[in-house]
Amino acid sequence: MKYFVGIDVGATKIIFLLLANNKIIKKKKISTPRTKADFLAVVKENLGKEVSGVGIGVPALLNLKRKLVLNSPNLPYLNNCPLTQVVKGFLPQKTPVAMDNDANCFALAEACLGAGQNVKVVCGITLGSGIGAGIVLNRKIYHGAHGSGGEVGHMSIKFDGYQCSCGSFGCFEEYASEKFFQRRKISSRELEVKARAGNKKALQLFIDYGRYLGIGLANIVNVLDPEIIVLGGGTSKTSKFFMRSAQKECARRVISPLAKKYVRIKKAKLGESSGAVGAALLLINK
Amino acid sequence: MKYFVGIDVGATKIIFLLLANNKIIKKKKISTPRTKADFLAVVKENLGKEVSGVGIGVPALLNLKRKLVLNSPNLPYLNNCPLTQVVKGFLPQKTPVAMDNDANCFALAEACLGAGQNVKVVCGITLGSGIGAGIVLNRKIYHGAHGSGGEVGHMSIKFDGYQCSCGSFGCFEEYASEKFFQRRKISSRELEVKARAGNKKALQLFIDYGRYLGIGLANIVNVLDPEIIVLGGGTSKTSKFFMRSAQKECARRVISPLAKKYVRIKKAKLGESSGAVGAALLLINK
Repeated sequence: MKYFVGIDVGATKIIFLLLANNKIIKKKKISTPRTKADFLAVVKENLGKEVSGVGIGVPALLNLKRKLVLNSPNLPYLNNCPLTQVVKGFLPQKTPVAMDNDANCFALAEACLGAGQNVKVVCGITLGSGIGAGIVLNRKIYHGAHGSGGEVGHMSIKFDGYQCSCGSFGCFEEYASEKFFQRRKISSRELEVKARAGNKKALQLFIDYGRYLGIGLANIVNVLDPEIIVLGGGTSKTSKFFMRSAQKECARRVISPLAKKYVRIKKAKLGESSGAVGAALLLINK
Repeated sequence: MKYFVGIDVGATKIIFLLLANNKIIKKKKISTPRTKADFLAVVKENLGKEVSGVGIGVPALLNLKRKLVLNSPNLPYLNNCPLTQVVKGFLPQKTPVAMDNDANCFALAEACLGAGQNVKVVCGITLGSGIGAGIVLNRKIYHGAHGSGGEVGHMSIKFDGYQCSCGSFGCFEEYASEKFFQRRKISSRELEVKARAGNKKALQLFIDYGRYLGIGLANIVNVLDPEIIVLGGGTSKTSKFFMRSAQKECARRVISPLAKKYVRIKKAKLGESSGAVGAALLLINK
């Protein structure tokens, strides 16, 4: 039996897990340290012994050829860190270490073991403080030519709309991440409480959110024509209130009658472990 | 030596060519007939003898599994026509016949023999009365799950913008096809004459057009991260007046610093034959 470590590095927590035969054997959650030295110490401590490989998901743009973290807005101490190389130093010689973007890991996990099983073209999207996404073709992450395939959060869906933190205007994530709720002085969690109590304004706000989400999903369907789009991330926990509206708006804007009819938009299945599972799968699915 | 026939079916003209060893041996241009019977007669007449295969590019959405033309807005007599099957009937038994969308054929030709040679991820875009596009990965057309991968013309770039003929709002092709010029009571050709004469308003209008084009190109770069985007179609003949503005607007809106720096946006190399060349390549590149 081969054991793989999957590490999902988040802005507030790190999940470590041990995967064997596609099953989670062990899992540990730790608050993300504030310094690079503490971060590396925590990683070193939690790698276990005699593992067949280690996969790491990071919330960052990566230079995959040089195995370098390029830019991690939420964990700036990782910027320019050759993380795979550093982690290799913690392990017996020749133990493989892989790294990828956290949303790519999420998408890989859902494509291999979650809502997108047995599907050739999967797009996995994380809805949270921003929008992350990964494209998985035949169980392999699609990276594009420069490692940034699937950065759907920064599609302009309204070219003269709100300015995004990236400098561009009208980015999808300005309209369909938690930023939508923040602009209305509430979070999706708080709004959910009101919606569950039957508050009509709250229910309508979720429907409005779903429409914006559906616009971006339609763009993805028109460009990529996936079989399934899997929605994860914190905001997706309230999906029962916006899913139908998102599906409806998406269908309105998809050009192909076949894609309009058959594309599935579904909630993720693997829960909070998906990122770490996907990180471990980086090695298994090579 | 193997000879392949490539047929590019356009709304106004059909190009037939014979390709051998990736070279054009013969070429013929015919006005597109007005009826299905005349169309099929013209196709039959121009298939040549002892060919190794026939490829057809059509301006239509296709059902590739059933080899059926689904919907051809400019040639409605092709709707629901099982065109590959019909053409097979004109040929000696077992002669292979392939069919694809015309923009996919354009992209394939440019990826194999044009501006995108030796490139793994190519997006080919035709700018004309609408916007067509094809995605070519490792010299194969990417079709997506339902045959409609690459329908970038119908991405919403302004969700509350102009209504498109497809029923959706703010489609890329409303802003970056000839529709942009039509809305200003001019064509790109007519505007080019003025621009060449140094007319400042004409030059500014091309710059404005380029900006809209750049917005959609940035969306493609953010989602697909191609190495090159190749621009073809009638409007691209005036590209010297809008290319820089398109490249600049695209760079502003691309999130990845690597893609921003390295993605190439170039004019097509193969001219009016590209569609027919790509159609012939459908068989060669199988």
